[in-house]
Amino acid sequence: MLLHFEEDRALAQRIAGAAGLPTAAIDRHRFPDGELKLRLPATLPTQVVLLRTLDNPNEKLVELLLVARTARELGAQHLTLVAPYLAYMRQDIAFQPGEVVSQRVVGRFLADLFNAVITVDPHLHRVATLQEAMPVPQAVVLSGAPLLADLIAAHHTRPLLVGPDEESAQWIAQAAARHHFDYGVCRKVRHGDRQVDIALPALDVDGRAVVLLDDVASSGHTLAGAARLLRAAGAASVDVAVTHALFAGDALQVIQAAGVGTVWSTDCITHSSNAVSMAPLIAQTLLTLTA
Amino acid sequence: MLLHFEEDRALAQRIAGAAGLPTAAIDRHRFPDGELKLRLPATLPTQVVLLRTLDNPNEKLVELLLVARTARELGAQHLTLVAPYLAYMRQDIAFQPGEVVSQRVVGRFLADLFNAVITVDPHLHRVATLQEAMPVPQAVVLSGAPLLADLIAAHHTRPLLVGPDEESAQWIAQAAARHHFDYGVCRKVRHGDRQVDIALPALDVDGRAVVLLDDVASSGHTLAGAARLLRAAGAASVDVAVTHALFAGDALQVIQAAGVGTVWSTDCITHSSNAVSMAPLIAQTLLTLTA
Repeated sequence: MLLHFEEDRALAQRIAGAAGLPTAAIDRHRFPDGELKLRLPATLPTQVVLLRTLDNPNEKLVELLLVARTARELGAQHLTLVAPYLAYMRQDIAFQPGEVVSQRVVGRFLADLFNAVITVDPHLHRVATLQEAMPVPQAVVLSGAPLLADLIAAHHTRPLLVGPDEESAQWIAQAAARHHFDYGVCRKVRHGDRQVDIALPALDVDGRAVVLLDDVASSGHTLAGAARLLRAAGAASVDVAVTHALFAGDALQVIQAAGVGTVWSTDCITHSSNAVSMAPLIAQTLLTLTA
Repeated sequence: MLLHFEEDRALAQRIAGAAGLPTAAIDRHRFPDGELKLRLPATLPTQVVLLRTLDNPNEKLVELLLVARTARELGAQHLTLVAPYLAYMRQDIAFQPGEVVSQRVVGRFLADLFNAVITVDPHLHRVATLQEAMPVPQAVVLSGAPLLADLIAAHHTRPLLVGPDEESAQWIAQAAARHHFDYGVCRKVRHGDRQVDIALPALDVDGRAVVLLDDVASSGHTLAGAARLLRAAGAASVDVAVTHALFAGDALQVIQAAGVGTVWSTDCITHSSNAVSMAPLIAQTLLTLTA
């Protein structure tokens, strides 16, 4: 059975439909004081999948705690979390003494609750595998990059893929290889959450159809900065393709104001830019895990 | 050492001052995507107290997870949570099959993180002790009722204490006994979060200075309903005294519009109505726990 919250109904049905699983919605009521009241089906099968994508993660982490502990009491023995977007994966070391390494803490929290976790393009940087960050028996990482590369290939004949920072290097190389796209990666220097300096790669972008490819668009400032430089360098068009359409606040407007044409994303986070679905791949993975 | 967040600085200093403890603020940054970045002091003593009152609890529960796990890594061996207001204590059974018994889940979550918990007037109903809800080695429950009773005695010579529902009966009897106040308890029938029917106790309220005493004021509708009935029955004045000034949304206006004069509360939740401090009692308890 696949459990989901009301707001995730569409993605839940795409995944469950492809996996041949029944779905059930969790009743969710929020009291005026901020406390949550949740209700699951009265009885559960031994194998249960919970779908929850973790953008704006804090309240959702409390939901996962409440649901997972209760699901065990109601009969679930094997609990799989499908979190297409996984939160708190960026802070993987203490940059200053005393800093909370939230990746490790949240990773262990989820590993305590679930037997398996499936996610898409988690922002792992200094750790090599998801299992290092989250010691869960089964941890599966899928990628949106191949599907986004296919989408780009359907729209442009000889696009130039550009990654907005060094962290995207390995990932963008993989996407480019799939269709023999030219590619390059920007260098990025951050000065706080919203201020970013960017240097373009040494490539001739004049007249090229450029696609900025990244795992996540959050504030949009990195993508907007890169787009502006690419436009100034003569790019014929700049489109954006991201796995996770986080787009905090006015991020989408910021990107569009920088001269970006189309924005494509996967349905890991529900957004008007969703253009490809991860549901078939997630469903296939679920069938493997529970086989 | 007493750790606190910036917004709780005043209460932290009252408690730490009375207990002779040094304080340290936790650096808290909220990224545009909703994730938190927290920084604790670089090294911690073996005994650490964390102050966090849990109104609007969900994000704060994630903070507690992040702080407690990191505090252990930084040297803390005995961790005490001071949560003057403790969340999720109301749902202590599944009223319908499948409902999350959040008291039990959140209780175990906190018991996993802390060695001791100190709180004030938790809303325990069907469980007798805090330790039943939260299996932590040391669980201490303080009450704001005696201090509120003293405050009422300083303002009224022969007040009539009224509890807005049956759940407050034992607690209001205790407060009344302290100063030999007359008292009674309303009967309450709830129809959802914001709709409440109330029946006054069989007492002559005509010309009396009535004080409505409760553990928590949340939506304010119960207190407002009782105040309106008391005014209609001839009460000379109706004041309100509560331990926890939760006052969600427009609750304070709702209460005042019902003819309530003064609203008093303890400083368990920082609010303009705070009139007595729990800090000395909390400090005294901390000294006992760590002796």
